[in-house]
Amino acid sequence: MAKVLTPKEQDYAQWYNDLVLKSELAENSSVRGCMVIKPYGYAIWEKIQQTLDRMFKETGHVNAYFPLFIPKSYFSREASHVEGFAKECAVVTHYRLKNSNDGKGVVVDEEAKLEEELIVRPTSETIIWNTYKNWIQSYRDLPLLINQWANVVRWEMRTRLFLRTSEFLWQEGHTAHATQEEAMEEAIRMMNVYTTFAEQYLGIPVIAGEKTETERFAGAIHTYSIEAMMQDGKALQAGTSHFLGQNFAKAFDVKFLNQKGEQEYVWATSWGVSTRLIGALIMAHSDNNGLILPPNIAPLQVVIVPIYRTDEEKNIVCQHGKQLFDELKNEDITVKLDDRDTHKPGWKFAEYELKGVPVRISVGPKDIQQNSVELARRDTLEKVNVPRQNIVSEVKQLLSDIQKNIYQKAFTFRNEHTYQVDDYAELKERIDSGGFFSVHWDGTSETEQKFNEELKATIRCIPLNQPEEDGKCIVSGKPSKKRVIVAKSY
Amino acid sequence: MAKVLTPKEQDYAQWYNDLVLKSELAENSSVRGCMVIKPYGYAIWEKIQQTLDRMFKETGHVNAYFPLFIPKSYFSREASHVEGFAKECAVVTHYRLKNSNDGKGVVVDEEAKLEEELIVRPTSETIIWNTYKNWIQSYRDLPLLINQWANVVRWEMRTRLFLRTSEFLWQEGHTAHATQEEAMEEAIRMMNVYTTFAEQYLGIPVIAGEKTETERFAGAIHTYSIEAMMQDGKALQAGTSHFLGQNFAKAFDVKFLNQKGEQEYVWATSWGVSTRLIGALIMAHSDNNGLILPPNIAPLQVVIVPIYRTDEEKNIVCQHGKQLFDELKNEDITVKLDDRDTHKPGWKFAEYELKGVPVRISVGPKDIQQNSVELARRDTLEKVNVPRQNIVSEVKQLLSDIQKNIYQKAFTFRNEHTYQVDDYAELKERIDSGGFFSVHWDGTSETEQKFNEELKATIRCIPLNQPEEDGKCIVSGKPSKKRVIVAKSY
Repeated sequence: MAKVLTPKEQDYAQWYNDLVLKSELAENSSVRGCMVIKPYGYAIWEKIQQTLDRMFKETGHVNAYFPLFIPKSYFSREASHVEGFAKECAVVTHYRLKNSNDGKGVVVDEEAKLEEELIVRPTSETIIWNTYKNWIQSYRDLPLLINQWANVVRWEMRTRLFLRTSEFLWQEGHTAHATQEEAMEEAIRMMNVYTTFAEQYLGIPVIAGEKTETERFAGAIHTYSIEAMMQDGKALQAGTSHFLGQNFAKAFDVKFLNQKGEQEYVWATSWGVSTRLIGALIMAHSDNNGLILPPNIAPLQVVIVPIYRTDEEKNIVCQHGKQLFDELKNEDITVKLDDRDTHKPGWKFAEYELKGVPVRISVGPKDIQQNSVELARRDTLEKVNVPRQNIVSEVKQLLSDIQKNIYQKAFTFRNEHTYQVDDYAELKERIDSGGFFSVHWDGTSETEQKFNEELKATIRCIPLNQPEEDGKCIVSGKPSKKRVIVAKSY
Repeated sequence: MAKVLTPKEQDYAQWYNDLVLKSELAENSSVRGCMVIKPYGYAIWEKIQQTLDRMFKETGHVNAYFPLFIPKSYFSREASHVEGFAKECAVVTHYRLKNSNDGKGVVVDEEAKLEEELIVRPTSETIIWNTYKNWIQSYRDLPLLINQWANVVRWEMRTRLFLRTSEFLWQEGHTAHATQEEAMEEAIRMMNVYTTFAEQYLGIPVIAGEKTETERFAGAIHTYSIEAMMQDGKALQAGTSHFLGQNFAKAFDVKFLNQKGEQEYVWATSWGVSTRLIGALIMAHSDNNGLILPPNIAPLQVVIVPIYRTDEEKNIVCQHGKQLFDELKNEDITVKLDDRDTHKPGWKFAEYELKGVPVRISVGPKDIQQNSVELARRDTLEKVNVPRQNIVSEVKQLLSDIQKNIYQKAFTFRNEHTYQVDDYAELKERIDSGGFFSVHWDGTSETEQKFNEELKATIRCIPLNQPEEDGKCIVSGKPSKKRVIVAKSY
């Protein structure tokens, strides 16, 4: 096939951009920094939504919806939150337009100026905690386990499709608890839900860990994240879960009567993932031929392409294809029969390769004669002939194999690009070639700043569940009990 | 039970507002005109979304997502669209805040003023057609059958929960076609999809018809709507579908190469329903005890309330309740076992009545002894004892009966409050007491204006599928072939 993508070895960023555009996932809109998510990209988002929504509900959460707009003053209530979020944002100042005097368009009606400006939500802690104030009186009203699917806006100067856009889609969980322990458990629980989702559905191994103070969410006591490695060795933060302590309860005066009959501030968490996950999905697995989508998240798992020359062959082959389609569909496999005669099989093969459909079935007269079917798997590009009568079990097995293989490949890649380094000169020399560097850190922001400035890298996280060991900070030589992951990142 | 709602006979508007608040569907937020959709209200919206999304996909549509912001100038491109939509809207003028000089908060950074103001979408025709321009070159690219689930903002001075809010949730379909016929078919098809949904799921009979020129969507050639009657006899527009002709294609210069090899403007439709449907659902069916939800859209179809006095009874009764729960759940009935001992059965009965759960099952020691179960239906408040072993089939039958009964009741109510009137004095006298008035109209905007000004009513629609008859306009006496529906409305 004619290569439509810039090879990733040549220019990784260009490969990514080409891929997003050519596989028709998304494109830049005419509104600076905002993207259009095209049907194929949105279908992936729908799969992400459905899966996570089910997981959230299984862990006791319900959905609700809060206003898009937040009064400006709300941001000033939580001291660190305002620093983190109220700066680069979309500000609504007026509520009316009027015809311009020259009759050539519309202009802002200066008489319709808002008394207080409204901010298009960059995240909803403030408006939600201002609402929770009225919902919570006693311990009987707790916990509140609420999630919101929404759009948010963070004004970005340099944007990249899915990875960093001014408007993006996400979910944000906001929970309220009677005790610190319960809130901490919730923050960890949701980090684990994200881990399971990333690994079992997106096929992306992640490192779950805690962020350093500098990298924490504005207003959080602890921020947990899952960090994934992309194929260029850079880290991508794929989801975060925050223990907010009583910060927002104090800022919005949300108290409850505890079981002892005392007034107490409510404990909080928040957690979110966004359309950025689609960027992670693309960059973790895809190749120079196009997307590679894990079957568990692919909008289309199997495509059937009939191959024929004559009208007579067409009839037989398409009828056969329809039978295969029905059999697979009955087993809840998402399958499409592409019997369009406007495009040649070769074109279709390239198209579905580009779009990352996990399994392609081609049926020609010869296959029918031999009572077999050709299955091509997208991840390895291998082909195999299987007996016609085993089609359902073979396809199921293949989908399962592909899911495992995609994960395993990413897992192996990450392991091969994760390095324990104890010498700062070595770290400095190697960091530009990518990968996760597991190093000892003295816990100071001075050292962290050095990573940022000298290495142009960050501490991605302090991995949880790591064994304690006696080490020395790679910069200061001070004693350290734990390693952190240092890497360049998106 | 203690009545928590203002009776609707006393004050219909207050009854509605009480009901929305007490049944915990939604509440006003601290942001003027914007509501908070609470978990129970949002659960209804999720049912609406799931059902409509399935119906849209079955009719060939896919979802996508377009930007929240629309450049101001886009609205001026379609002459009538700007009049209808670009006036009362949220205008983003700046993209940054900064710390105020007094250190007490944040203020708009005047240096971060946008060159062109952005409008928070009130509807997305303009941004979508500006995008379609790049997607459509030839007839092979058509039709485009795209839907978007989104939030929109139309600045409203007087708001009512669900019925009229500044921000609301909706879906908007935007399709592009090669021929006028195909686009007309699509507009009618989607009006029919809405009709089916309203009648079979919401249990609301609707009149499908065409809007008059005055009432048309800004930029449409034909606007079709479904009109529902509320229990106060007022009309509520529950969904609209527009044939947009080539208006937006011309405004955004979207041409395609037709099969004859000629450049032609693309034909368009758009169609939408919103969270307003929840308002319709409430007002069409509910009573002074609370919501009455049709089983096909109720977030919870069945609730099981155990009744016991002693701990021993509790064990037996709850275990029995759990068995019922499992049996019903296995049959895909959404069911909840409310075995909380923090609330008494009487409290629970009132609560689920208020929340409109279609079927309540109570189980006490006596029921177990008699090998029977008591079913209470919310719509009629009737109770019936059924044999324990028939529980699944009885509940299924009852849910089906309730769905039918709710529709039938609304249908009968509408018929009893629909009047053929041929005398203007009579119309004038009777219109204030509510109902649909089927009258002859001469097709002029003068007559229509008279309805608006003298009757404070509007022509809701010109019903489709009505027999032609020779009549005379109720105002002018000029000949008329068709009747229109005149009513007061929400």
